[in-house]
Amino acid sequence: VAVPDGAVVIAPWRPDVRHARAWLSRAVEPGNAEVYRFVSRYGPVDAVRRMRAGNAPDSVLRLAAARSGQDRSAHDLAEAARLSIRLVTPEDDEWPDDALSSLADATAAGVDNVAPPLALWVRGVRRLDHALARAVAIVGTRAATPYGSRVAADLAHDVTSREWTVVSGGAYGIDGAGHRGALAAGGPTVAVIAGGLRAPYPAGHAALFDRIADSGLLISEWPPDCPPHRYRFLVRNRLIAAVAAGTVVVEASARSGATSTALHAERLGKPVMAVPGPVTSVLSIGTHNLIREHQATLVTRASEVLELIGPMGESLAEPPRSERRPRDGLSPVAQRVLDGMPARAPVSPDAIAVESGIPVVDVLRCLPALELDGFVEATSAGWRLRASARR
Amino acid sequence: VAVPDGAVVIAPWRPDVRHARAWLSRAVEPGNAEVYRFVSRYGPVDAVRRMRAGNAPDSVLRLAAARSGQDRSAHDLAEAARLSIRLVTPEDDEWPDDALSSLADATAAGVDNVAPPLALWVRGVRRLDHALARAVAIVGTRAATPYGSRVAADLAHDVTSREWTVVSGGAYGIDGAGHRGALAAGGPTVAVIAGGLRAPYPAGHAALFDRIADSGLLISEWPPDCPPHRYRFLVRNRLIAAVAAGTVVVEASARSGATSTALHAERLGKPVMAVPGPVTSVLSIGTHNLIREHQATLVTRASEVLELIGPMGESLAEPPRSERRPRDGLSPVAQRVLDGMPARAPVSPDAIAVESGIPVVDVLRCLPALELDGFVEATSAGWRLRASARR
Repeated sequence: VAVPDGAVVIAPWRPDVRHARAWLSRAVEPGNAEVYRFVSRYGPVDAVRRMRAGNAPDSVLRLAAARSGQDRSAHDLAEAARLSIRLVTPEDDEWPDDALSSLADATAAGVDNVAPPLALWVRGVRRLDHALARAVAIVGTRAATPYGSRVAADLAHDVTSREWTVVSGGAYGIDGAGHRGALAAGGPTVAVIAGGLRAPYPAGHAALFDRIADSGLLISEWPPDCPPHRYRFLVRNRLIAAVAAGTVVVEASARSGATSTALHAERLGKPVMAVPGPVTSVLSIGTHNLIREHQATLVTRASEVLELIGPMGESLAEPPRSERRPRDGLSPVAQRVLDGMPARAPVSPDAIAVESGIPVVDVLRCLPALELDGFVEATSAGWRLRASARR
Repeated sequence: VAVPDGAVVIAPWRPDVRHARAWLSRAVEPGNAEVYRFVSRYGPVDAVRRMRAGNAPDSVLRLAAARSGQDRSAHDLAEAARLSIRLVTPEDDEWPDDALSSLADATAAGVDNVAPPLALWVRGVRRLDHALARAVAIVGTRAATPYGSRVAADLAHDVTSREWTVVSGGAYGIDGAGHRGALAAGGPTVAVIAGGLRAPYPAGHAALFDRIADSGLLISEWPPDCPPHRYRFLVRNRLIAAVAAGTVVVEASARSGATSTALHAERLGKPVMAVPGPVTSVLSIGTHNLIREHQATLVTRASEVLELIGPMGESLAEPPRSERRPRDGLSPVAQRVLDGMPARAPVSPDAIAVESGIPVVDVLRCLPALELDGFVEATSAGWRLRASARR
C-alpha cells in the first residue's frame, strides 16, 4: 500500500509488541540501562514474558518487582485510544531514532539513567520523527519574570519562524511562554510531559495543551493515568535534552529543573545555551552560573542559538548591531586633525598642527582629502569645520 | 629628614627634570613607544634638549614637530600649582611603578601605543602609588540605564568596602555611578581624565570631581589647560586598564569606549569582566558580546570580581545562593517512596511499592528511617505522610 506523505504508520500487525511495550511503560520507570539492554537483547515480547516469569537478572526483576504482577496494557491502550493518544514504539515508522541516538550512545558509553525510552505515549497531529528532526529546547523557571517570559516567547517565535521546533516541558513560566511563542509563529511545538497524558500536568495549562496537540505533539513515557511524581520530572528532563539539538535556559534560580535539563544536554554532548538577565534578578542566578562556569554559552537572540545548533553555514548570527559614524572611516591622523580644529572659527594649518600635535606637513596633506569628504572647507581666513562635521 | 608616612615627596632638588617632563607632556601625545624609549635612554632633561635641537631620530622629532618650538613648562607648572595640581614624575617617590609595569612590559614586547606615561598631572590628597596599589576599573557607557547605574554603584561600593580603589574615567553614566558608589562607601576613588585637570571633562561633573579630589585623585597625562580631544579618550583608556588589576564593564553598546578599555586590559594581560543585563537592552549588547566572544568573564557581584583579581585566597566568591529543601538529603529511593504516597490517606507498603515502582522490600526498609526523619508516620490503617512533609 502507498502511504501518504507525513502519515503515521502504526504497526498494526504486531499487537503483541504494542502490548509488551505498554506493559513495560507501566512496569518500570524509564531511563534504566539494564532494562533497556534486556529489552534490546530479547525483544519486547520475549523480555516481558521473561520478566513476568521471573526469568531475568535480579537487577531487572527488582525494578519491576512491585508492578510485574499487573497487566494493564490492554486497558491502557484502550484508554489511550479513547483520548486520541497513541503508543509509539521503536517498531513504528515514526519512532525518532535520530533524535534519541544521543541517549543510546550515552547508555552504551556507561552513563547512568539516560537510557532511551522503551515507548512513547503521544497525542497530536505530527509524525514524531518529523516533529523532532530540527528541535531546540527552551526551558526555565516556573516563576518566570515578565522579562523572562517575553524573551522565551520571542526566542521561540523566532526559531519557529526559521522552521525549528520548540521543545519544552509544558510547565508554567518559561516553558509555557516558549510553547506560546512557537504557536504565535504558527509553528508546531512539542511538550514533553512528566506523567500521563490523560490530564497533563499542570492542569492549568489544559487549554494550552489542546492547542499544542492541534498543531504539534504532547509526549510522555508514562501511561495516560500516571501522576507526575517529582522524580519523573528529572527523568523527563533527560528526554527534553535528548530530542533537542540544543537546550536554551532562559531564566533559572540557583537550583532548578531547567539546570538539570541543561546538565543532561551537556552530558549528552549537546550545546547548552543560557540567556542572561539583570544581575539584580534571582531568576537569572542560574543562567549566570551556567555561563560563568562555562557550562553554557551566552545567547541573546534566535540567530545566536541557531548558529550553535544549526547545520554548518545554515544560520550564522548577524554581526553585533553597530552604528557607523561618519568619522569612523578616517585615518587616526585625519581624526586628530579634525579634533584639533575649533568648532566654528577658521584656523591656519599651523594652528591645527599645534593643537593636534600632528606635523604641519601632515596637516597640509590631510586637509584637501577632508575637504573632498565634506568635513572641512577652505575660506579666505583659513580652514574651517563644516557644520555637518561638528560634534 | 624623616618623612611622615603617606606623605607625598616631590623631588624639589631636580627642577630641571620637572620642567623637562612638563615640556614632554605638552609636546608629544602620550603612549608612543619611540618617544618613551628615547626619554628612557637619555633621561628627560637631555632628551628634551636633543629634541628641541633637532638631535633625535626623525620618528621622534616628527611627533613633537608642531609643538617643539614652544616651552610652556614653567607656565604649566605655575598654573598647576595655583590649581592644587602637582606633576608626578617617574623620579618621584609616589610614582606608581607597579601599577604601570604592564604598560612597560607590553611596550618592551612590541605592542604599539601603550607606552607608560612620561609624567602625570595629579590633583588630590593621596599618594598616587598607594591609591593604585589595589585598584579595579569600573567602566561603561555614558548613556547608562537606571539598572546599569545601580549595578555600577553597588559594585563600586562593595569593592571599596573591601579596600579596593575604584578607577574610572569620570564620564557621565557608568563611570560617574562607579565613582559615586565608591565615595558612598567612604573610600577613595581615582578618575583618569582625558584632557587637562583645570576644568576636567565633563564640566557637569565638576562637583563630583571636587569630591573625588577631597578623598582620592584626579589624574591626567596632559597639562591643565589641554582640551579633551577625541583620540585622547582612547589613549586615556589604556591608562585606566593599566593601573587597575582588572576591568569591569557594566553596560556598553555594541561599540563603545568601555569596550576599548576592556580590549586594552586584555592586551595588557589583565582580567576583563563584564556584567550581563537584559537582552532587550541595547546597552548590554557590548557586555554580552565580550562574554560571548570569551573576552570577558561574566560577573554579577563584587565577590566574583575580587575572586578574579585579588591575591590568591583573599576573596573567594561565596557559593551561588541556593535554598535547601528538606527532601534534598534523601536517597532517590526514599524520595520515590514519598512521591508514591497519597497526600493524606494512610496506605500499605504494597500500595506504595506499586505506585512508586520500588520493590516492597525496599519500601519496608525505607519507611522506618523516613519516620525517624519526620516525613511519615505509622498508623493502624497504614503509613501516612505527616502534614509537614506534604508538598
